[in-house]
Amino acid sequence: MALAVVLLSGGMDSCVTLVHAIRDGYEIAALHVNYGQLTQARELQSFNDVCDHYSVGRRLVVDISHLAAIGGSSLTDVRIRVDEAHLDATDVPSSYVPFRNANILAIATSWAEVLAAEAIYIGAVEEDSSGYPDCRSEFFRAFENVIRLGTKPGGHIRIVTPLIAMSKREIVADGVELNAPLHLTWSCYRNSDVACGTCDSCALRLRGFQQAGTPDPISYQQRPLYL
Amino acid sequence: MALAVVLLSGGMDSCVTLVHAIRDGYEIAALHVNYGQLTQARELQSFNDVCDHYSVGRRLVVDISHLAAIGGSSLTDVRIRVDEAHLDATDVPSSYVPFRNANILAIATSWAEVLAAEAIYIGAVEEDSSGYPDCRSEFFRAFENVIRLGTKPGGHIRIVTPLIAMSKREIVADGVELNAPLHLTWSCYRNSDVACGTCDSCALRLRGFQQAGTPDPISYQQRPLYL
Repeated sequence: MALAVVLLSGGMDSCVTLVHAIRDGYEIAALHVNYGQLTQARELQSFNDVCDHYSVGRRLVVDISHLAAIGGSSLTDVRIRVDEAHLDATDVPSSYVPFRNANILAIATSWAEVLAAEAIYIGAVEEDSSGYPDCRSEFFRAFENVIRLGTKPGGHIRIVTPLIAMSKREIVADGVELNAPLHLTWSCYRNSDVACGTCDSCALRLRGFQQAGTPDPISYQQRPLYL
Repeated sequence: MALAVVLLSGGMDSCVTLVHAIRDGYEIAALHVNYGQLTQARELQSFNDVCDHYSVGRRLVVDISHLAAIGGSSLTDVRIRVDEAHLDATDVPSSYVPFRNANILAIATSWAEVLAAEAIYIGAVEEDSSGYPDCRSEFFRAFENVIRLGTKPGGHIRIVTPLIAMSKREIVADGVELNAPLHLTWSCYRNSDVACGTCDSCALRLRGFQQAGTPDPISYQQRPLYL
C-alpha cells in the first residue's frame, strides 16, 4: 500500500486533509511539528487523538522551537510585528517563523524519502496566504521541483494540497461530509482547556461553522456571531 | 553594510566559503547546525574559533538531531546503508539526513528573512554530490526559486556557492591563498582530540593538502599518503 506523509497540526484544516489522504488510498505517516506555541501540548493531544481515531500508528513529532526563537529574539523589523497584529500578536510572541512551510516541508521530505512515501499532504489554504507567501500553489509547485532535484533519482514525492482553493466554510462543509472527527481538533491560540471563542483562530473557525450552517462540536467560553 | 548568512560547519569548505563572503563585502551572520554527529562538540568549537578569528558576533546554533533520528531509527532501505558505507558508516550511525541541505537552507532562509540578509553562502561542492543530489547547482537554483516565492515580496535572497565547481585540492589552494584559518577547522568524523587521519573525511582532506603541495596545519594520529 502506497504511503503518504500527512502534516497534522491538530487543527481542523490538517484533520480534513488527513481524511483526503486516506480516501485517496494512502497508508498514513503523520508528522506533527511543535514550534514553541502556547497551546503546544493541547495541539499535540489533538494530533494523537486524530491519529488514534484513524488508527495511524506511524507518527513523528519534531520540535523546531529553536528555529522559532529566531523570529522572537532577533526580530528587529517593525513591519513584521504590524503584519502579525491581526493574528492576536500578544498570544503568539515567538511562534512566528518566517518561511515556516519550507522548513516543515523539508522535514516532511526527509521523512518521506526514508519511508519511500509517494506524497506529502499539507492543509495549506491560499485564502489564508495574506502575509504568508509560503501558502500559495506556486510555492508548493516550486518546492516540488526542489524535492525532485534534491532527493534520490527515481523517487517521486508529490505535494498534495486538497484544501488550497477552499474557504473556511467549504472546509467545514467538506469535513462534515467526510465525517472528519472535527470534535477532536483544536484551533484556539489562547487556551488549552476550553476554547476562548474570541482569538483570531477561534473567530475564523466559528465563522466557518456558522457560514456552513452546522454547529461546531467543541465547547467555547463565548460564541460570538461572526457571520 | 549588507548582510549574508554563512553556513559554517567547522570544516574546511565552509571556512573557505566564509572568507569568500567576507571578501564579497558582506557583514556575516554565521549559522551552525548540529545533527547529533559524534564529533558535534568539536565541530561547534571550530565554528566558534573561526567566528572569533573574524570577529563574527552574530551566531546561531540550531540542533536538528530530532530530524537526524529519522534516518537512523526508521531506516529500512538496505540500499541507503550501502551508499553510506564509503563514508565510514560505523562512525555516523544516525547522522545521515536525507534532504539535509534543504532542511539547512530552510533554516538559513528563515534567519536571513528576519535579518533582511541578501545572501546565503553554503560551501557545497558538486564533486562530493555522488549520492547527495542536494549538492548540485541545479538544486540550489531551484531552492532560490522557492525562496523567491516563499518569502516576503521585495526581498531577494541569493544562494551563493563559491566552491561548487572546485576539487578538494583547489579548495585547499584557495584557502591558503585567502589566508583562511584552516588550522582552526575540524574534519575528522572519528575523533575530537587528534584527527585520526584514516576516516574518509580525514582522507579527503589530507589528499587535498597533499595534492595542493602544502602541509595540513592540524595534527593527525597518522598521515597516510593519499596521492
